[in-house]
Amino acid sequence: MPSRYLNFRCSVPWLILSLETLFLIHFLFCFSDVCNLYSSSVSYPDFQDVNHMVIFGFGFFLMVLRRYGFSSTGLNFLLIVLGVQCSMLVEDLLVILRVQQSEGGMASIAKSVVSMTAVAISTGAVLGKANPVQLIVMSLVELIIFYVSRCINRRFLQVPEDLTLMHVHLFGAYFGVAVTSRFPEPPPGLDKNRSTPKSDLFSMLGTVFVWVFWPSFNSVLAEFKNQAVLNTYFALAVSAVAAFMLSALTSKDGKFRMTHIHSAVVAGGVTISYTAQSIQHPWIAMILGLLGSVITILGSHCLQRCFNPAFKLQDTSGVHFTFGLPAVLGAVATVVLRVLERGISTQWNNLSSLGYLVFVDLGAFCQTISTALITGLITGLILNTKLLKTVHVSKYFDDQFYWEFPHLSVGF
Amino acid sequence: MPSRYLNFRCSVPWLILSLETLFLIHFLFCFSDVCNLYSSSVSYPDFQDVNHMVIFGFGFFLMVLRRYGFSSTGLNFLLIVLGVQCSMLVEDLLVILRVQQSEGGMASIAKSVVSMTAVAISTGAVLGKANPVQLIVMSLVELIIFYVSRCINRRFLQVPEDLTLMHVHLFGAYFGVAVTSRFPEPPPGLDKNRSTPKSDLFSMLGTVFVWVFWPSFNSVLAEFKNQAVLNTYFALAVSAVAAFMLSALTSKDGKFRMTHIHSAVVAGGVTISYTAQSIQHPWIAMILGLLGSVITILGSHCLQRCFNPAFKLQDTSGVHFTFGLPAVLGAVATVVLRVLERGISTQWNNLSSLGYLVFVDLGAFCQTISTALITGLITGLILNTKLLKTVHVSKYFDDQFYWEFPHLSVGF
Amino acid sequence: MPSRYLNFRCSVPWLILSLETLFLIHFLFCFSDVCNLYSSSVSYPDFQDVNHMVIFGFGFFLMVLRRYGFSSTGLNFLLIVLGVQCSMLVEDLLVILRVQQSEGGMASIAKSVVSMTAVAISTGAVLGKANPVQLIVMSLVELIIFYVSRCINRRFLQVPEDLTLMHVHLFGAYFGVAVTSRFPEPPPGLDKNRSTPKSDLFSMLGTVFVWVFWPSFNSVLAEFKNQAVLNTYFALAVSAVAAFMLSALTSKDGKFRMTHIHSAVVAGGVTISYTAQSIQHPWIAMILGLLGSVITILGSHCLQRCFNPAFKLQDTSGVHFTFGLPAVLGAVATVVLRVLERGISTQWNNLSSLGYLVFVDLGAFCQTISTALITGLITGLILNTKLLKTVHVSKYFDDQFYWEFPHLSVGF
Repeated sequence: MPSRYLNFRCSVPWLILSLETLFLIHFLFCFSDVCNLYSSSVSYPDFQDVNHMVIFGFGFFLMVLRRYGFSSTGLNFLLIVLGVQCSMLVEDLLVILRVQQSEGGMASIAKSVVSMTAVAISTGAVLGKANPVQLIVMSLVELIIFYVSRCINRRFLQVPEDLTLMHVHLFGAYFGVAVTSRFPEPPPGLDKNRSTPKSDLFSMLGTVFVWVFWPSFNSVLAEFKNQAVLNTYFALAVSAVAAFMLSALTSKDGKFRMTHIHSAVVAGGVTISYTAQSIQHPWIAMILGLLGSVITILGSHCLQRCFNPAFKLQDTSGVHFTFGLPAVLGAVATVVLRVLERGISTQWNNLSSLGYLVFVDLGAFCQTISTALITGLITGLILNTKLLKTVHVSKYFDDQFYWEFPHLSVGF
Repeated sequence: MPSRYLNFRCSVPWLILSLETLFLIHFLFCFSDVCNLYSSSVSYPDFQDVNHMVIFGFGFFLMVLRRYGFSSTGLNFLLIVLGVQCSMLVEDLLVILRVQQSEGGMASIAKSVVSMTAVAISTGAVLGKANPVQLIVMSLVELIIFYVSRCINRRFLQVPEDLTLMHVHLFGAYFGVAVTSRFPEPPPGLDKNRSTPKSDLFSMLGTVFVWVFWPSFNSVLAEFKNQAVLNTYFALAVSAVAAFMLSALTSKDGKFRMTHIHSAVVAGGVTISYTAQSIQHPWIAMILGLLGSVITILGSHCLQRCFNPAFKLQDTSGVHFTFGLPAVLGAVATVVLRVLERGISTQWNNLSSLGYLVFVDLGAFCQTISTALITGLITGLILNTKLLKTVHVSKYFDDQFYWEFPHLSVGF
Repeated sequence: MPSRYLNFRCSVPWLILSLETLFLIHFLFCFSDVCNLYSSSVSYPDFQDVNHMVIFGFGFFLMVLRRYGFSSTGLNFLLIVLGVQCSMLVEDLLVILRVQQSEGGMASIAKSVVSMTAVAISTGAVLGKANPVQLIVMSLVELIIFYVSRCINRRFLQVPEDLTLMHVHLFGAYFGVAVTSRFPEPPPGLDKNRSTPKSDLFSMLGTVFVWVFWPSFNSVLAEFKNQAVLNTYFALAVSAVAAFMLSALTSKDGKFRMTHIHSAVVAGGVTISYTAQSIQHPWIAMILGLLGSVITILGSHCLQRCFNPAFKLQDTSGVHFTFGLPAVLGAVATVVLRVLERGISTQWNNLSSLGYLVFVDLGAFCQTISTALITGLITGLILNTKLLKTVHVSKYFDDQFYWEFPHLSVGF
């Protein structure tokens, strides 16, 4: 289909160019306060860890398809760097609209990179099915809606800034699931959506990277850094151990399954993300890590057998059970832990304040997840209009549609 | 053999589950002093470097077998996270028994991760031959014995805390060698214990990672961090250069051999580990690095031709010459350097104090190596009882025995 | 050709040994001032970032050839560690000759590692064509000439120390191009100088690493670290986005081309290297990043079609357009920006001081590039004398000439 290619050729670079021009104009006019830009509350090593985890870690974490390695890392990289600039533009707009205060440049970029995790997660859901134009549109829409959702949480439900950012896994996963439900299903005989041992190995490389940097991710904006780091580490350690245990328990012949390990190893980090800095006892963090791993592996079986076929979903890299379910668990755990803590400290006398606490926390959770699902569905519908040139299902999961292969042997 | 599989399936997850329950109970009851847990003498970046090196670096460093990539990284990861929790339990027990003082959480985990290096090294010796149950049992036994050995060194020989930890290479290597000597030999025609260029490349990736992070490893608990870092860097630089030189000298046709590079590049870091913070002149560090490289490459030739066949040893990834011999050299060098230093400063007048010094240093060395060898032999015998379901030799070095391969083509 | 092999075998190890002996003697006699060695103005994390980027990042960045993976990482590693030691020797010579002041050990090594980037870049130009002896000779000669060139810039043109180091990309690229022009061309039918999807993936891994660490590289010696980091990040972000845009615009069918991405993604970091800490507005950094990307991708088309065939150049990994052209652009941009800044601040009254400014900046640029080209040509001629045993063109781009392949299947 040469016409589609030409269309594609016309649209991708011009879309990027117009966005980049917009960012340049924004930076040209918006930053009156330069001193502020170059001073920051976030230190460079903290920022760098997050940057490393999102760009390197997630880029290789997503490399699960046999013929989609270039796109997995390459497009993830493109979306992150585009998104960070877009995110800084949105932040400045919010400062101008006096919705929030201006921060230093490093803090601003660090928060942008953390927000981009939502996009990286959603990308995992439509991996191999969306073309670059769709991905760019999706990531910009998602980013803006995530900002709106965070603003609602902060303004109307008084959720602290750093906790609103931790909804990033929940939002990213359900937005991605909703978007991918609007994409046509791949033909049943297609084997390109499987992994090879080699792609699994690269994905393991990314997983280990993500695992090692997760404590930095959960503590980058935290007030009590040490506590956030240690609790996250305990949760991650237990979830990694539980991943192996549950994988051997649930798979045929008691063997380990690589996809289980990839998913469940990081589940602890997602589950603990809301409560990392407020948990006072490491065993609570460990139990959360354990539950995160359990819900991920049980979820992967239930979703792939019952839920996904029923809803005709195809969640390529399983973000629903890798990030979605642990995030739901984490949100529920936060409510329970906060109610228990407040209840014990007030000796269960002030039940109305407890009710308010539950209302706020559950409200933020419900608002985030429903916004993600509804806007995700709408975005999915928009992405599949003729205007955005849907990829034909036979071209799914294939690098060769987007990348030149000048190599003689493509026996990759 | 379905029955063996079923047995295996029954034992691995339950073993992990019971351990994890134990760790949870420990954390539930032991930590009365939470403030202490969340404050620490080790900074997060230092801890993270060590964590990164052991989990990511050693995971890929061990990826030398053509069909064992999943197990090399995956099981190394499992053992480290299990071991760190076990190690924290042992530390708390020692605190309760008043053998040592309680430290902060980060310092405690950092020391646990450093101790786990012993397990990672021993794993290298039995790589591809031990099943996960054997590996878990081995790592827990090894960890506990290493703690006991360190306690003896600290209590009876007055070795400082941070130096006792540096016996980790010596202990890990000789424990691993002793354990592997009790495993049956693989059949001679088996080609799965070779590497491929691809596995060598992944292993090179791990080697470079380990190399870059080694100064962090040697300085994590050191008092004079800068000195430890610089001396380690000098030793590593010289050992890397010498690795290429000796590889070309000793191999056929003057070509480089990848396994030489893997081993000898890190030998400098092992050799210098005891003395990194006390050496006053960089040239001493450089000579130690050079000698480390020499002993590793000569050792690899001698051991593989004479020693291993004579003792029917099969040291899969060559930990004896990669970590064992340089650690012996380092221990001897420590004695010589300390005697020279003390001798010169006292103008060789106080020979009895010199004798005491030699006695203490050699004592710690002999105690560590003999404990490692004896307990390693016993552990090897226990691991090869029928109870722990030895893998049949025809299934050695193969991921497919432990991992599901849902991939169509397994031409890995 | 057994005789050549034997010659090769004779020369590589002895060359390395004699160099290493020289370094040892230097360290044995030169460092009178040990306290100074172990204290430093550069912190360990900064140094480590640079070390990580040059050894790990560039090692994998250069892995673009299908049969040259071992040599790309291995020899890069060897050259860096040799070069760092040589560089410290040269620094100490300069201190003894009172050309510069002594600094602490960490700062000295950090600067050495930054200088070695020039060698890593030049290695990219002759990748697969030079044998290890030629590479070692080239890197030592290049290092010494780079020091001389920096001294001239610092003494006669009053360029600050940290800016002289930033000429490293310019020097490395043009030195490499000049050297490679003296190597015989490979036969036209040779397909070993192509990449495979797998080698491209490893190279992408290196590229992402280099990208993530570039802000550390540009800020390691900077006075205003935060500013250098942020400006570099903005430039890198825009150049990465522009790389995808331009790749789709310039290649057939609007597909992305991996080599474009590899080159242009880091072009922003090169372009901004001179001005990272002096730019006051992020949009200037962004425009520089954009221009860097444009010049790299346009350059890659022009050079590969017109310039390289005309001059019979074969620049294996395209260092001319990846590092050379963006560095030229960066140097020009520095002059323009400084003149504008000074002109505006003096209201264009003091034109003679402006002229002096232009003279100094252009002088440093012209001196560096002409020294690189002339000495590069001479070095290329020396390297291709019979003494240094040129590799036969049929053996170009092949690991098997330098590395033992004990693997059964070499279907790498």
